[in-house]
Amino acid sequence: MLTIERVIHAQKVLEDAIYKTDVVRTSALTDTCELFLKAENLQKTGSFKIRGAYYKISQLSPEEKQRGVIACSAGNHAQGVALAAQKNKIPALICLPDGAPISKVEATRSYGAELCLVPGVYDDAYTRALQLKEERGLTFIHPFDDEDVIAGQGTIGLEILSQVKNLDAIVVPVGGGGLISGVAFAVKSIAPNIKVYGVQAAGAPSMLTSLTDGHIESLASVSTIADGIAVKQPGEHTFEYCRKYVDGMATVTDEEISAAILALIEKQKMIAEGAGATPVAAVMAGKFPELTGKRVCCLVSGGNIDVTILSRVITRGLVMSGRQFTLNIELLDKPGQLVAVSRIIAECGANVVAVHHEHANAGSAVIGCYLRIDMETRNFEHIAQIKRALADAGFKICD
Amino acid sequence: MLTIERVIHAQKVLEDAIYKTDVVRTSALTDTCELFLKAENLQKTGSFKIRGAYYKISQLSPEEKQRGVIACSAGNHAQGVALAAQKNKIPALICLPDGAPISKVEATRSYGAELCLVPGVYDDAYTRALQLKEERGLTFIHPFDDEDVIAGQGTIGLEILSQVKNLDAIVVPVGGGGLISGVAFAVKSIAPNIKVYGVQAAGAPSMLTSLTDGHIESLASVSTIADGIAVKQPGEHTFEYCRKYVDGMATVTDEEISAAILALIEKQKMIAEGAGATPVAAVMAGKFPELTGKRVCCLVSGGNIDVTILSRVITRGLVMSGRQFTLNIELLDKPGQLVAVSRIIAECGANVVAVHHEHANAGSAVIGCYLRIDMETRNFEHIAQIKRALADAGFKICD
Repeated sequence: MLTIERVIHAQKVLEDAIYKTDVVRTSALTDTCELFLKAENLQKTGSFKIRGAYYKISQLSPEEKQRGVIACSAGNHAQGVALAAQKNKIPALICLPDGAPISKVEATRSYGAELCLVPGVYDDAYTRALQLKEERGLTFIHPFDDEDVIAGQGTIGLEILSQVKNLDAIVVPVGGGGLISGVAFAVKSIAPNIKVYGVQAAGAPSMLTSLTDGHIESLASVSTIADGIAVKQPGEHTFEYCRKYVDGMATVTDEEISAAILALIEKQKMIAEGAGATPVAAVMAGKFPELTGKRVCCLVSGGNIDVTILSRVITRGLVMSGRQFTLNIELLDKPGQLVAVSRIIAECGANVVAVHHEHANAGSAVIGCYLRIDMETRNFEHIAQIKRALADAGFKICD
Repeated sequence: MLTIERVIHAQKVLEDAIYKTDVVRTSALTDTCELFLKAENLQKTGSFKIRGAYYKISQLSPEEKQRGVIACSAGNHAQGVALAAQKNKIPALICLPDGAPISKVEATRSYGAELCLVPGVYDDAYTRALQLKEERGLTFIHPFDDEDVIAGQGTIGLEILSQVKNLDAIVVPVGGGGLISGVAFAVKSIAPNIKVYGVQAAGAPSMLTSLTDGHIESLASVSTIADGIAVKQPGEHTFEYCRKYVDGMATVTDEEISAAILALIEKQKMIAEGAGATPVAAVMAGKFPELTGKRVCCLVSGGNIDVTILSRVITRGLVMSGRQFTLNIELLDKPGQLVAVSRIIAECGANVVAVHHEHANAGSAVIGCYLRIDMETRNFEHIAQIKRALADAGFKICD
């Protein structure tokens, strides 16, 4: 049974093991409310997961500690458990699917954990982890559905209360629900007037669906760039804590998450992973109209974004803000056409990054050909200017 | 004449206008020294430039203030002057080349400055700024070669001394030399045993060249992704301060800067612009062997990186770490070849992002064609595995 004393105890236990991360005030992301960011992306291991894992491990019996712990994760939980075990000087075995990003595998290894790369996907690694737990008598560290883990995550709530005065609301990412359960429980125990809202990815709304239906639901599949909260089914404990303590839930799309990641980069010089950016995404997209004019803290839960994903997010952001543009033109297949188009684009000050030139196909006139040009542009007005200049010169732009 | 009292005075004047940015200890970027980062990328306007501009403006006479100030910049100096003027409630006119990135133009405008977009490049904007200064009786705020500006930047040195004990060295980006002049003067005045090192971009080594030659040199051209320090000629004041107070200089390549930007993103969840990343780049690349084992503070001077540049830096980082790969294959021009290649790549677990398929050209056999496939891979071992699988199946890979 979770008590506020247990969360306060967790805070004492964690004191020397983790960072008390900053809360930063920002006015650059929205005008609709007074926004604060709790920077758990700057926590050790790059996410809040170390808190719950460390507290859980600290509460094991000497015998359990001696045998060691096991976890299954390809992400932040793996690194949290690995570092928590290393700091507690006990062995840790982490099962990961063998296709896990090499950067996450290496980070987990760097904290001294033994790794078990299991062929297949997460579910295969999970099955193998349960086998190994039995065979070796290890303690399984659940990523969210465990009251010690929840108490550890709840310490973030205590910190926020001490760091921001007169707060009206806290917005928290929700996957399995461990983080928001701990934060909501701690906050409501001390300051019940502060609202706690949860945000899920639109492609993985398992907690929201379960709360709406009044019982735990399991999604057949999940799909989101916020891999840290791509969870098919909430936990039993976390479902009950959310039902009791959470004031509202919303979902955000991958587009909204990408826009939030890009805004955090450009305005805050801060790297958030998809899950970590969901509260900011929800606030920026106005998903909680009741927050207008309020003092709101968004919990940026982690910063371990895969660089490949980051690259895609930035590219999408460039396209969406008119700074990258792909032009398709239908040309007459005669000499001099490419040079004419190129000259107009250069005169407009755009920077060509790729050109594809194709001869007639079934969809075009027999004497025609297609030209596709990828270019860096300044904004939508600039794109319109280039299109006008080409149209004025008689070129046929295809949309 | 610069005095330490003037720098201390600047610190008092700046107290309520700027952030005292954090110094963060990091062990993730290098094992060779104890590294600290002074996070001026998190300063107001995203760079240190507000310090010098604000102090300079605060020291103007009432008449000068009433007439207002003018500056020429497409970057951080523009934003620093604009915000400093706004906070001092005086008018500011900023001249920019009209091709300046829209994000920088909009940021400058958002601080209330009047903008003059001048057709052409920086030098054209500069010429126009000098005209306007005369016409309107404005005070020109030099980006670096001004002792009040230098005193303002020097406040960073005072802060670092108060934030890190027993420091051995500070590493500072160098463009025109205003930042390092202020920091070196302040630090040497108070703690002369602390070394101060400067870092320039290899494509814009104007201060290093001038110091080596013993007199001010002007470079014919500069080229670097670190646009904030792409300066052709050091200032007269800054040259003298660097000659007197700086202990050593190094240059870093665009590749080294890119690697540092990517490391700051992945390990520190922090966005640095090219100039801001140069000290970290120099330390990571071992450019100052004398720093081994020392306590070193790298000044991350700014975070205003253009997202287009950031996208390129990340792409380059992905290629350099084996996470993005372009495969070229020579195929026989017969049905079924593409499906065979695709299947092998899929079985190896790589993710195809683009395919280009070309028929015979002058360089290939008449019955042949070329296939180029861009894919996301896990690491260099993974790439080698894919190449082996294709070679074993009889495909001819072109390098």
